[in-house]
Amino acid sequence: MANRPSAKSEQHSEKLNVLVPLAQGCEELEAVTITDLLTRAGMNVVTVGLDAQPVKASRGMVLLPDTTIDTVLDKPFDLMVLPGGLPGADHLQQDDRVQQKLKSMALEKKTIAAICAAPKALASAGLLNGKTVTSYPGSLDASQIKDLEYSEESVVIDSNIITSRGPGTAMDFALTLIEVLLGKEQREAVEAPLMRPH
Amino acid sequence: MANRPSAKSEQHSEKLNVLVPLAQGCEELEAVTITDLLTRAGMNVVTVGLDAQPVKASRGMVLLPDTTIDTVLDKPFDLMVLPGGLPGADHLQQDDRVQQKLKSMALEKKTIAAICAAPKALASAGLLNGKTVTSYPGSLDASQIKDLEYSEESVVIDSNIITSRGPGTAMDFALTLIEVLLGKEQREAVEAPLMRPH
Repeated sequence: MANRPSAKSEQHSEKLNVLVPLAQGCEELEAVTITDLLTRAGMNVVTVGLDAQPVKASRGMVLLPDTTIDTVLDKPFDLMVLPGGLPGADHLQQDDRVQQKLKSMALEKKTIAAICAAPKALASAGLLNGKTVTSYPGSLDASQIKDLEYSEESVVIDSNIITSRGPGTAMDFALTLIEVLLGKEQREAVEAPLMRPH
Repeated sequence: MANRPSAKSEQHSEKLNVLVPLAQGCEELEAVTITDLLTRAGMNVVTVGLDAQPVKASRGMVLLPDTTIDTVLDKPFDLMVLPGGLPGADHLQQDDRVQQKLKSMALEKKTIAAICAAPKALASAGLLNGKTVTSYPGSLDASQIKDLEYSEESVVIDSNIITSRGPGTAMDFALTLIEVLLGKEQREAVEAPLMRPH
């Protein structure tokens, strides 16, 4: 750009970068609710496959991620969000690159979020010790997490870790992420046109 | 199959066939909520593109349909559901094959459903004359529909035409389709594990 933008326009043009890994067998309703609403909020959402194949989601929809996880390991993100579903969440838990990215983003105090069965991938990275979290019922092995406080709220915020329960809480989960990162006004600007029932 | 199945097992193995056209620029949250929940209900959901390309949805997700609409024009379906989003709904409205399929299914009194901006495609096929319907606010030209009764309810059932408002009503819309076609028990069996807030 020839003209140096003003401080104000720099601020407005700086989008938050969001990483959403799409594993084979992820829950498509959760994955798409997250990417759709965060995109509506003006975030730059990057979806990554764990392999170079189209992603067959848990209820049959086939999704094409933007790229593969190998291409983004050294890139900075403001937020990482894990959709649930099985076996998707198991793949996220078992993938060394996902685990490495979770740990490095946690060290940088970036926001990390997971829904449904995916909090188990945060547990494996050691991110749930001493935290209050929720998940899909029965999907977290509390005995393997130190000082876990388990909640049955739809969305739970504990410092930089945000967790949620399932497809029926995915919209509240995504809207909460928008509110935490961009404020209540931006959440309302995204929520109103969705036409949710009062 | 060598053995003729009993009447009971025939009944149980007979899945409802659902046609979901995925146009370029469809609303991915609506499209995927529909396909996910109807699949959870045991329906055989077939997604069809209007061309042979991957479908770039309105908020950037890329979906791979099962097949193209040309391959299913002569096949019978129990239900046709149109996701909204723009320009997706415009494509559904302008596509001769979609219009032809809507008209032939309407003649057979099959259930036809549309959400968000997509009821306009039903209007073009002449299916909304004399009906009570809803849609995304401002997306239907009421002056071009004879004896339209417009509702602001989240989901509206008028005989075989079922309409809804937007991404925030997509879950209620899909659950209503399940209830209408398979009964309240099946709706509840799909709804409970979604973990919706009370």
